[in-house]
Amino acid sequence: MRKIEIVQGILDANEATATGNREVFDSHNCLAVNIMSAPGAGKTSFILRTIEELSADTRIGVIEGDVVSTVDAEKVHDFASAVVQINTKGMPESCALVADMIQVALERLPMSDLDLVLIENVGNLLCPSEFDLGEHLKVVITSTPEGHDKPLKYPVIFSQADAVIINKADLLPYVDFDMEDFMRSVRNLNARVTFFPLSCKTGEGVTEWVTWLRSQHPAR
Amino acid sequence: MRKIEIVQGILDANEATATGNREVFDSHNCLAVNIMSAPGAGKTSFILRTIEELSADTRIGVIEGDVVSTVDAEKVHDFASAVVQINTKGMPESCALVADMIQVALERLPMSDLDLVLIENVGNLLCPSEFDLGEHLKVVITSTPEGHDKPLKYPVIFSQADAVIINKADLLPYVDFDMEDFMRSVRNLNARVTFFPLSCKTGEGVTEWVTWLRSQHPAR
Repeated sequence: MRKIEIVQGILDANEATATGNREVFDSHNCLAVNIMSAPGAGKTSFILRTIEELSADTRIGVIEGDVVSTVDAEKVHDFASAVVQINTKGMPESCALVADMIQVALERLPMSDLDLVLIENVGNLLCPSEFDLGEHLKVVITSTPEGHDKPLKYPVIFSQADAVIINKADLLPYVDFDMEDFMRSVRNLNARVTFFPLSCKTGEGVTEWVTWLRSQHPAR
Repeated sequence: MRKIEIVQGILDANEATATGNREVFDSHNCLAVNIMSAPGAGKTSFILRTIEELSADTRIGVIEGDVVSTVDAEKVHDFASAVVQINTKGMPESCALVADMIQVALERLPMSDLDLVLIENVGNLLCPSEFDLGEHLKVVITSTPEGHDKPLKYPVIFSQADAVIINKADLLPYVDFDMEDFMRSVRNLNARVTFFPLSCKTGEGVTEWVTWLRSQHPAR
């Protein structure tokens, strides 16, 4: 029981910090997006495509979360206005970003010069669903080779999503992915979600996603 | 600090239970394999292919771990000699199987009638690496659409693997996956690992894996 009490304490503290982060984003009129997926679903490619489409008129910061390594931050570095890398290894919760880590990242980002912050969470469909970061939007990326049954197995993260990206649409001819079945499973968990089938490789469908993202700013 | 001490206590208790599980497997001359991967890499398809190749002369039990749902256990049910489903939702560690869960599963499996137990862990490249289950072999599955940089980002699980399966080899013409780069990254973490590129969809490469698996039993 002691461990469960402590975990609850951590979640309460996280919520308070997340609220503070949200106030920072709001005070700078900056939209914050928490991007979550399984390993290899394409979070970094998705961020690169989003920057490519928006960078002409939007100043974008990126917070890169990973247990170890800086490979994603290096890929993004030349394209974003600012990047902060967070490595979670050795932290009490290493399998997800938590609000404390975002608080530290916000101190390092030039918040007055940013319109949008994209947060790449750790590759994991479980732990990240437990921690509010203070973001405005939660985006979950699935990829077609993962199969259409993922919402049945990882329901919490899909139930929280504002948008679900179905990446690697270019592989649809070669994999067993039933789009209708997938969307029905997600809708059963989450009636308000918006879907964006797209391919970060070919660029197909990216415009629809970016148009929607623009429509979310600065609504809150 | 309190939380870290408690986590250490949990890991010590897990190790003791894992040792007990290993004694149960050994006393029945039964090989136990812990199968780990990201969501959607193909653990269940891999188990089904392995059963297909071995079931003529090998009695196989399966322990299916998932946070929620029984979809995988249902797929495996008609092919294995025995199946036990474990749902980790609500348990203190819900993002991985732990030794306690395997101990319970072993009480439900007809251990005297089994030669091999395949354990499908929760889809996650992080948490499962923390918990010894009492298995003899750790198998990590990666899939080609995930990309070849996964060992850099999830090094612990690759460093522990006895075998690394590179699944979805049939998609190699359509994805950016550098096999040589991937193998080099894993070898830098783990010199003793054996690789099996294969496709659970086409069956290509499955024989090599199964031949190796046979060679591991009952060596210990």
